[in-house]
Amino acid sequence: DLRLNEENARFALLALLMAGYLLCGAAVFSAIEHPTELENHRRWNRTLLSFTQRFNISPGEFRRFLREYEVAMAKGIRVDALRPRWDFAGAFYFVGTVVSTIGFGMTTPSTITGKIFLIFYGMMGCAGTILFFNLFLERVITLLAVLMKGFRRGGLCLRGGDPETDPGQEEGGGGEPGQLSVWKPSVYNVMLILGLAASLIAFCASALYTPIEGWSYVDSLYFCFVTFSTIGFGDLVSGQRGSYENQTLYGLGNFSFMLLGVCCLYSLFNVISIVIKQFLNWLLSRCCFCSRH
Amino acid sequence: DLRLNEENARFALLALLMAGYLLCGAAVFSAIEHPTELENHRRWNRTLLSFTQRFNISPGEFRRFLREYEVAMAKGIRVDALRPRWDFAGAFYFVGTVVSTIGFGMTTPSTITGKIFLIFYGMMGCAGTILFFNLFLERVITLLAVLMKGFRRGGLCLRGGDPETDPGQEEGGGGEPGQLSVWKPSVYNVMLILGLAASLIAFCASALYTPIEGWSYVDSLYFCFVTFSTIGFGDLVSGQRGSYENQTLYGLGNFSFMLLGVCCLYSLFNVISIVIKQFLNWLLSRCCFCSRH
Ligand SMILES: [K+]
Ligand SMILES: [K+]
Repeated sequence: DLRLNEENARFALLALLMAGYLLCGAAVFSAIEHPTELENHRRWNRTLLSFTQRFNISPGEFRRFLREYEVAMAKGIRVDALRPRWDFAGAFYFVGTVVSTIGFGMTTPSTITGKIFLIFYGMMGCAGTILFFNLFLERVITLLAVLMKGFRRGGLCLRGGDPETDPGQEEGGGGEPGQLSVWKPSVYNVMLILGLAASLIAFCASALYTPIEGWSYVDSLYFCFVTFSTIGFGDLVSGQRGSYENQTLYGLGNFSFMLLGVCCLYSLFNVISIVIKQFLNWLLSRCCFCSRH
Repeated sequence: DLRLNEENARFALLALLMAGYLLCGAAVFSAIEHPTELENHRRWNRTLLSFTQRFNISPGEFRRFLREYEVAMAKGIRVDALRPRWDFAGAFYFVGTVVSTIGFGMTTPSTITGKIFLIFYGMMGCAGTILFFNLFLERVITLLAVLMKGFRRGGLCLRGGDPETDPGQEEGGGGEPGQLSVWKPSVYNVMLILGLAASLIAFCASALYTPIEGWSYVDSLYFCFVTFSTIGFGDLVSGQRGSYENQTLYGLGNFSFMLLGVCCLYSLFNVISIVIKQFLNWLLSRCCFCSRH
């Protein structure tokens, strides 16, 4: 029937757009990063050659040693002492990266027992965290609705449009976790506020990381985005050095920023995805479906 | 008012349960992995000492060299040649791990331009992918509904309960992406089918990875869970060697398994989160709220 066709068309259109988005992204990133990669390889080969020649180490021998070092690094060993990986605090950081699906990978289970336990532990933990994020978004929307109702009553209406006829409003509560029956803030309002909140958290967190971790401000912002979006590359990970000044306080601040940031960015992604859905609907209504009716 | 109180209580209860879950998980993982960590450190120190003594390298000098190697490794350099990171195929793999938020971290942007571009690229990409997953779940529920309707009509009803009075059913379509107005399969049905599908995909994918990547079957299953859940530690990453037999075919199979697996497990997590929500509601109705009414 017609509704099914429309849903299938929307899904196919999105798949097509995403494929194009990936191809374009791959081309751009390749253009940006490829020259640096070649330069890095050249520089490393020079360093390696000069070191083996200086100490008269046979290349085969040295490769065998470096292979062992790679295995050791995968188990969390570094030249400069890092914090212990599997003391209680380290394990707590680890399970945090599991249930949030950030997965930095600075700590990974190396025993078979640990790996099997991770599968079952992660299954429940990730589901619980998704629920936590969804309830958080629900809470945010409720809070915004209450606040805006207050503004309206006080005559401080910030938006020109009538909320009852706002096109963004039906979608905002329809497909997504927040279900406010009485009055809903538009998706655009929620998107704006979440975007501002996420930016503010990222800027504040970066101001914390820059002096303490010794990263540049851009690197700190990049770390914040990679963490809050739960991508979690692991090229930069906060709180990994052996010791910090005010260790406990920093750990607490780090945890709070990450929790808040992940909640905000998860909610923001969900709200942006609603806007993209509206855009798809608009595209579909403009092109083929219109002509068939 | 009462509904708001209930929502707040549910959120607080979940936060409490999650905190407990994290603490228990940290204790268990610490107990499993801590002894191995100590053993790894002892073994590595022996290897390091014997190597520096044999070639008469001063420890300070060697530490400086290994520090350089760590920096080079972060940029994707390994002893055994890996596939190029930033050719088009590598960049495509990279953007795939970005928009899916898997973020293995085997490839990360090292230029400032790349890092800043990533923030904007990831913002839209992650939102698009969340929509893709949500539409996928919607499609699955629709498909199941159609299939089950067919079974019912043909007299092949598999479940004993009447779907019209099934307690799982109202929740299944209420808070979550799939909104089927006519007839909905219960959350438990969807959970079972998604769980079976995800397991089947993981078992098949592991059967592919075990011979080609040379991982043990348990490691392959662990890799599948870590990837499909979008945790993406990056301790094991498929398709990274310099060359494979049937490279293109393997790349395609790898991509397909990951896409299917991530879609299934994302949907499964969402469905499990609905069951957890029902469990929270049941807990709340049992304890304090009941006595107040
Ligand atoms: K990751
Ligand atoms: K991740």
